[in-house]
Amino acid sequence: MSIVVMKFGGTSVADAGRIRAAARRAIQTHRRGHQVVMVVSAMGETTDHLLDLARQISPDPPKRELDQLLATGEQVTISLVAMALEEMGARAISFTAGQIGLVTDDIHTKARIKSIDVRRIREQLDAGRIVIVAGFQGVTESGAVTTLGRGGSNVSLVAIAAALGAEVCENYTDVDGIHTADPRIVPNARKIPRISYDEMLELASLGAAVLQNRAVEFANKYNVPIHVRSSSNTKQGTMIVAETESMERIVVSGAALKDKLARVTLRNVPDQPGVAARIFHTLANAHTVVDDIIQTTDQHKRATVSFTIDLADLLDARKVVAGLCKALGCKAVFEDHLAKVSVVGVGMRTHTGVAERMFSALARARINIQNITTSEIKISCLIDRSQGRRALRLVHDAFDLGRKPKSVKKARKEGSGR
Amino acid sequence: MSIVVMKFGGTSVADAGRIRAAARRAIQTHRRGHQVVMVVSAMGETTDHLLDLARQISPDPPKRELDQLLATGEQVTISLVAMALEEMGARAISFTAGQIGLVTDDIHTKARIKSIDVRRIREQLDAGRIVIVAGFQGVTESGAVTTLGRGGSNVSLVAIAAALGAEVCENYTDVDGIHTADPRIVPNARKIPRISYDEMLELASLGAAVLQNRAVEFANKYNVPIHVRSSSNTKQGTMIVAETESMERIVVSGAALKDKLARVTLRNVPDQPGVAARIFHTLANAHTVVDDIIQTTDQHKRATVSFTIDLADLLDARKVVAGLCKALGCKAVFEDHLAKVSVVGVGMRTHTGVAERMFSALARARINIQNITTSEIKISCLIDRSQGRRALRLVHDAFDLGRKPKSVKKARKEGSGR
Repeated sequence: MSIVVMKFGGTSVADAGRIRAAARRAIQTHRRGHQVVMVVSAMGETTDHLLDLARQISPDPPKRELDQLLATGEQVTISLVAMALEEMGARAISFTAGQIGLVTDDIHTKARIKSIDVRRIREQLDAGRIVIVAGFQGVTESGAVTTLGRGGSNVSLVAIAAALGAEVCENYTDVDGIHTADPRIVPNARKIPRISYDEMLELASLGAAVLQNRAVEFANKYNVPIHVRSSSNTKQGTMIVAETESMERIVVSGAALKDKLARVTLRNVPDQPGVAARIFHTLANAHTVVDDIIQTTDQHKRATVSFTIDLADLLDARKVVAGLCKALGCKAVFEDHLAKVSVVGVGMRTHTGVAERMFSALARARINIQNITTSEIKISCLIDRSQGRRALRLVHDAFDLGRKPKSVKKARKEGSGR
Repeated sequence: MSIVVMKFGGTSVADAGRIRAAARRAIQTHRRGHQVVMVVSAMGETTDHLLDLARQISPDPPKRELDQLLATGEQVTISLVAMALEEMGARAISFTAGQIGLVTDDIHTKARIKSIDVRRIREQLDAGRIVIVAGFQGVTESGAVTTLGRGGSNVSLVAIAAALGAEVCENYTDVDGIHTADPRIVPNARKIPRISYDEMLELASLGAAVLQNRAVEFANKYNVPIHVRSSSNTKQGTMIVAETESMERIVVSGAALKDKLARVTLRNVPDQPGVAARIFHTLANAHTVVDDIIQTTDQHKRATVSFTIDLADLLDARKVVAGLCKALGCKAVFEDHLAKVSVVGVGMRTHTGVAERMFSALARARINIQNITTSEIKISCLIDRSQGRRALRLVHDAFDLGRKPKSVKKARKEGSGR
């Protein structure tokens, strides 16, 4: 019997009515002959509410305790979903991460999954029950509660689906699927029917909020297709799958905006081998994820090292950087007003002219590009946050993403190749 | 180094300010050279709020899931208390029941503690940390979350104190101690400085909300003194201790009102040996706690069996009773408007006239007594709920409980002996 793992995010379980709707979906899937596992997030704004509570007590609470606190959000949801299922006549059982042995490392608030013991889930599925698992959380070997970071419920979804060898995992959310850009910012954004893991990885790490990159990496590694779809209708959403040849015909699949970026600039850094390594090793040890890095050197053998980070990590980074500056005799400047606009598409590997088209669109609108980074399948520009949303709309239009993709042949005729 | 276990009830941790106050108390005790364990309840109205959520989903949710839900309330508090302690410079660590191996049976919503593995608590205490444990909850051998019933945090308190061999357990609450009656109902109620476990047991089972009888039983069994005191001042509260001779001089120590009682009356029950046993065996199997029982028989070999239960158990009892009626051919009547007023004192064992004085007080006020039950140290009268509060005040006055207790010698002179 095939297993379907269904994940319902915070807005899809925000109140009793939506919890019942999620339960109904699970029952429908169960009745179609699948074994069903549900992975659920905390209801609506619960996590933010819990964070508020913590901040009333401490500006910088111990992370172990923060995880102990935040994990309650999902525990509330799993029990309510199980109640809803039972109330509708299904048989159901809820599990916290600890109860199913979803073991992580001990990096609190950003833990990584080490192993999942699926025996308990299988037992319950084989007994005919729908199993509800708390997303976003894990436990360390010694039993401390951990959380997987914002969006970690998607990591739970894919990890559990992979561990169970599920046929598909379904990500129910408040949008219809992955769009060519965030439809809240770009009104003519269009749903993408199929997208490759690689493109989704780029989009996710560039700010597309629907799926976290760790979730997509997991899915890619274990080749689990993810169906991103709406919890409020039954339309097909976006399938995230392994890359196929036909995908290369689309030069740019989507555009994204990451609008909560900070930049740390270290001036007067000794220009010696090993210094950059030391800086980024120290940051990595403090679990600060560094985005892009730029280094320049003047004639006095002093360098300027600049890097971007998530705005949320700025507080942690300030502490680490203060220590580094002391040790290296450099001076730090912190900027918290940046955003990054990007375009992504596997077709870029084989087509030219993409970068130029993007830069021109921004230049025509007099948007200053503060930094450029590229990969095989993406181009990103760092800009001021105040221009982020406008830049996204401009770039989206520049690549005609609001229209159904043209075939490459036609595009070439029109001279859009690099 | 002696261990002090401090319990803070829901009102004593209702917001960030009170959580900080509780943390401050713990730090003071720690600085006086004690090892400190804190047992905490859910904040303020959290448990009621969670119950509301559950009821929006299901009128009668599966109890396993209800426990999974309710246990989150205490988990929120422990993490916030740990944060507050760390913020104030102390070292602290929080534990759920699962994390310290507080194992119960699997009677969900009313579980009983089977064992506590205190190694983890001791390790942390010896490392200089203040340990915060979630009250009210446990886990089964297989890892399901259980709860110990309303007021179960006090059971946690005493059980943990007993397991650790603590010197004293302190029960911080929103009242100054145990009173001669509930001060919210009886304005001239007086704080009792010392009370025996037996008296407290009677008072607790008769409706004195401060301590649950299971907590006092535990304390009695392991001879752990409980200090019931206010979280908002440093006054001495009430010490609950083993009975001493001097206590017998006080005829009546306190009066109590249990005002949420229901009565189930089974009419036309076959008057045969074993029928009553069957009825109460069935109820016990359904974990319905039966309070008082009355049985009468008519000339047609049919009996009427009547018993009182907590109003909260009425829904469960209705189901069980429906089955019984079908099997026995009897008819059930349910009443939900009853209350019980009681007086308690170890001095009753050796003194007379107590019952008469109580009945007269109620009779003079034209309060109809629907049933009377007694033990060695208590007398209870079942009355209509609408007269409950007035009855409590009358009885309290009848025994002069608002005044400092007279010595028995003097009382005898005044002719108050039985």
